[in-house]
Parts: sequence; C-alpha cells; structure tokens
Amino acid sequence: MTPVLITLGEPAGIGPDCILLAFQSDPEAFAGTCVYAPAAWLEDRANLLGISVAIHEVRAPEASDLALNCWNPGVKATPAIIPGAPQKETAGAVIQCIEAAARACMEKQARAMVTGPIEKSVLRNAGFDFPGHTEFLAYLANVSKVVMMLASRELRVALLTTHMALADVPASLSMEDTLTILRITHQDMQYRFGITRPRLALCGLNPHAGESGHFGREEIDILQPAAERARSGGLDVTGPAPADTLFAATRRKAFDAIVCCYHDQGLIPLKALSFGDAVNVTLGLPFARTSVDHGTALDRAGGGDVSYSSLMAALRLAKDMQSGNRHAT
Amino acid sequence: MTPVLITLGEPAGIGPDCILLAFQSDPEAFAGTCVYAPAAWLEDRANLLGISVAIHEVRAPEASDLALNCWNPGVKATPAIIPGAPQKETAGAVIQCIEAAARACMEKQARAMVTGPIEKSVLRNAGFDFPGHTEFLAYLANVSKVVMMLASRELRVALLTTHMALADVPASLSMEDTLTILRITHQDMQYRFGITRPRLALCGLNPHAGESGHFGREEIDILQPAAERARSGGLDVTGPAPADTLFAATRRKAFDAIVCCYHDQGLIPLKALSFGDAVNVTLGLPFARTSVDHGTALDRAGGGDVSYSSLMAALRLAKDMQSGNRHAT
Repeated sequence: MTPVLITLGEPAGIGPDCILLAFQSDPEAFAGTCVYAPAAWLEDRANLLGISVAIHEVRAPEASDLALNCWNPGVKATPAIIPGAPQKETAGAVIQCIEAAARACMEKQARAMVTGPIEKSVLRNAGFDFPGHTEFLAYLANVSKVVMMLASRELRVALLTTHMALADVPASLSMEDTLTILRITHQDMQYRFGITRPRLALCGLNPHAGESGHFGREEIDILQPAAERARSGGLDVTGPAPADTLFAATRRKAFDAIVCCYHDQGLIPLKALSFGDAVNVTLGLPFARTSVDHGTALDRAGGGDVSYSSLMAALRLAKDMQSGNRHAT
Repeated sequence: MTPVLITLGEPAGIGPDCILLAFQSDPEAFAGTCVYAPAAWLEDRANLLGISVAIHEVRAPEASDLALNCWNPGVKATPAIIPGAPQKETAGAVIQCIEAAARACMEKQARAMVTGPIEKSVLRNAGFDFPGHTEFLAYLANVSKVVMMLASRELRVALLTTHMALADVPASLSMEDTLTILRITHQDMQYRFGITRPRLALCGLNPHAGESGHFGREEIDILQPAAERARSGGLDVTGPAPADTLFAATRRKAFDAIVCCYHDQGLIPLKALSFGDAVNVTLGLPFARTSVDHGTALDRAGGGDVSYSSLMAALRLAKDMQSGNRHAT
C-alpha cells in the first residue's frame, strides 16, 4: 500500500511536537503513513518531550504499521534543531523534504501528503520565493492554478485570492480566474471528496453583494458572469450572494463548498465554527494534499503543550481523499 | 414609565408581520413599548394574517401594558399598504415615523427605540439621502460619529466602516476614526451595556493582520497607532490581531466587543455564530437604539411565515440597555 506522506514543516516549530504527541496518543492513526524528515529531528524532540515512541528510520518511503516511519529524502546532516529558534542552515532541508514528498506523490509512490507548518520568513531568507506551501506545490506540479480550501466538519471554503493585502483583492479578481476556481472546486469536490453533484456557493465581494451595484460593481462585472458561465457549463453554483448570510447556520448547510473572494472572508467563519478540526486542502493538484491550519507557534515548540487535533484532522482527511489522478498530466 | 419605541420600517415588508406575530406569541414582551405608526398599517396586516390582537391607537406615545400601543406621529392618510410592493407614496411616512421616534428619545419621552427593516431603494428614490437608519439617526442627533454594532449572545462586533465597496475600505480607514470608534465602543460598553472594564479587540484589515507588512501596511500605519493611543488612554484594547483567529471559539470569549475594519469582517462571524438573536445596535447616539438584523423580505410579507426572533432580541436588548444620556448635549 502506498503511504500518506507527512512533512514536519519548520523543525524548530511545533510540527514535530504535534506528530509525536499525536502518534503517542493514537498510533493507529499513523498506520499507512511515512514522515519525510531526518529521523534525528523527531528523535531529539521526542527525547526533549520525554516521549518514548518507536521511530523507524526506514530504507525506503514505506507505509508504517505501528511505528512512526521516518524517511530521509537525502537531507545532509544539519545543525541540531533548537526548538523555538529556526536556523537558516535548515531552511534548505525543510524545502527538500516538501519537494521530495510532492515528487513521490506525483510518481505514485505515495497517495497523498500532509504538511506541517513552515516558517515562511526563514524560508524566504533562504531563497524560497513562494507565498506558501500551496504555491510551491503548484510550481512543482506544473499546474497553473490551484485553489486553497479550508475544510472542517462544519464548512468547506475555497478562496479566489489568498495571501495579499485586502486593498489588492478587488483588482485581483477576474472572470476567468473565478470560473477556473469554480471548476476546480467542482471537480475536486467530485474527485477527491466523492460528491457526485457538488453544490457550490459564491460569495459577493462587497457588503450585501454590492446591493445591485450600490456598493461596488465586482459582483455585476466579474462574479455574476463567472457564476453564469459555470452554471451554463452544468455546475450547481448559487450566487454571488451576500457573504454574511451564506454562512448563517440555516444557509451554509445547503452547500458542499463556499467559494470566497479573499482570505478572511473564508477563514473567519471557518475558524469561528470549527473546533480545531480545520484542514487546509489544496485543490487542483495532481495529488491529494492537506495541511494543518495552524502556524509554527515557535514559542511553544518543545514544550509539550500543543494541540494536535488539526494534524489528526489533516491526516484523517488525507487518508479519506481519493487519490486517483484525473489532473495528472 | 417612558416607553421603548418601535418603528415598523417598510410597511410593505415583514416589519408589521414580525411585530404582530411576536406580540401574539408573547404579549408581555411588548409591555412598556409603543409602536410609532398609523394603526391602519398594523390593523390591515393583522386582518390579512388572520390574527386577532388588541391594537390600541393611543392619544399620546404611551407605554403599553397588555395591548399593542400604536401612536401615529402625524402621518397623513396614505394609500393602502400592499404587502410585498413598497410604494413611493408611503416613503415619506416611513421616514416621518423614524424621525418622530428619534426625537421622542432625545426629548426623554422615550428611553430607547427599536427599528424595523426599511427598503432603502424606495426611501432613496423619495429623497432619503442616507445609506441607512444609522446615518440618519446620527444626522438627527447631530453627532458626528456613530458606530454600528451587531450583538448576539455569542458575540458583539463594532464596525470601522459599514456600507461601502470593499475596494474603498482600505483608504477609508484612518487613525483618528479608529481611535474615535474604539473610544465610543468602550464608552457605550460601559454606559449602555453596564460593563465596568470593557475588553476590546481590534481586527487587522489584511490576512494574518498583514504579517508585519508583508500583505498590506494598514496595521502598521493606522491600526497599531490607534490601538496604542487607545491603550495609552486607559482602554483595554488587544490588537490589531488576525481576524480569523480573533473569532475562534477559544479567543472570542476573551472580549466584550471586537472592532472590525469592514462590514463582512464582523457580520460573517456574527451571523455564522448567532441563531436569529443578532441585534443591530447604534453606539454613540444620545439614546439606546437597536434594530432587527434582517431585511424587508418583501416576498414573504403578509404570508405569516417569518421569524420574529431578531425583533424579540432587539426588543429585549433595548429594554436592557441603559438609557442615561452621557452623550447628550
């Protein structure tokens, strides 16, 4: 059985803590997984936390049974990890692990990957020229458009724009992109989530979805035409509709995914409604990829006081997601 | 006892339905209130709905006991109301009722007012030159700054900007306004909500609150200085902080009110988390004013199938709010 791969993210952050504590609490959740990292990164942290877990340094990226399988994808010796203090000397190794895991997924040696939180500023200083994991994975997979989705038991949101200043959002929206993102979301709802006829909603950008152009014209000029073209193509798309009502309890249940214009429009309700089970999913890639929804929390690394519920949710979803590769070239 | 005043809003909308059904269901909730409207507007709707309630056309704006007191503040005869079809002939009367109620509050003939939903496009065509109730009441009270707050059992959000295109939001933020709104929110939390030491949070505008300027500088240039000045003045203000985490379950409970940069930033989580009990509150006025959080729902007017939970919540909150007038001139 091909494994689900896990990357630690920033080894000085809480990524290793989450994996170790989650494994200690529920080893069976890790059956069929393989962590892409030098074993020392996990062993040292386990010692620091006083956790005794079976870390297997495997000789090939194999799915684990009851141990925590660890595969070093060629990382050369690095300085010892200092919890809470990322080092530029390990930045290259962090990137190498992510890239190797992605390649293994694309080469069908793995069926999905789960990524831990990276420290973007450290990677940027090491020449990592991407806003985050998502864009890096799109680059590696050579796909021109991916979609950032956050999923919890309560809600799934997909984003038209991600990490940019709010002032740049309106000019960044386009009919073509919106249509592409509606299509990718529809396809991956079918393909990765197994929903035969996905019901999508599209949020307006402006308050009250612009109230017929009174507060902005993006709904009229961009979002409405995109939604109409999507509907013409057979997609079940509601909207553009006022975002505040779309997320109300009685309304949101009518949709399998809600497509949002910008980061906070989706992440505010997602985090308000989820209880540590929100998972970041990248749609449009030729493989299933999930991620925790939290950051590196450097100040808590190595302290043992972390929640691994998001990691468990990301792992659970990665295992559930279909791994067939309609998107593959 | 001075009454709490209620205005219907658009008489062709569900405002009258909500009042009649709410009164039928719980007459005691209306003790101490007085509806500012021609009695015929309520009587005709009651007949249409087949509801038999005691509507008292009072000769002065008096607080009711067990009837639905109705006071006509000088509205001349209007055409019969057609549920679902607002008429330009009644627009002036709608405005007149709101204005009379506000004046009664300012003249201490009433202690608070609760407003039903208006149909803004109809009022605009009749020369009503305000984005909504809130701005109109500020104009009537001659206060230069009011704050729109939405309150539910779960959450209170105050807005730095309200009904404007999202593209206009970043340039509309200013240090001075932010500071003023923090101060008004603090004061009214104390004064109208009886919270001795209000704990406020301020949302960042950009994703991740800009990540130290990576995604926008409004936090650095505007919000941070405003928060610091507020703190220097003795206010308990957290932030600017990433909006998506501020609304998470574990975080939001630490605050009495969360100040948001724009409409959807506050209304999305408010409506996602509330169950029909969200109330619109105007802070900074010389009287307490609450409002339902829904629109006119023209398509359902006169049909009997409406929820009056928001009206009940608005009425409850208006009765609870302190009516002393520190803001009064």
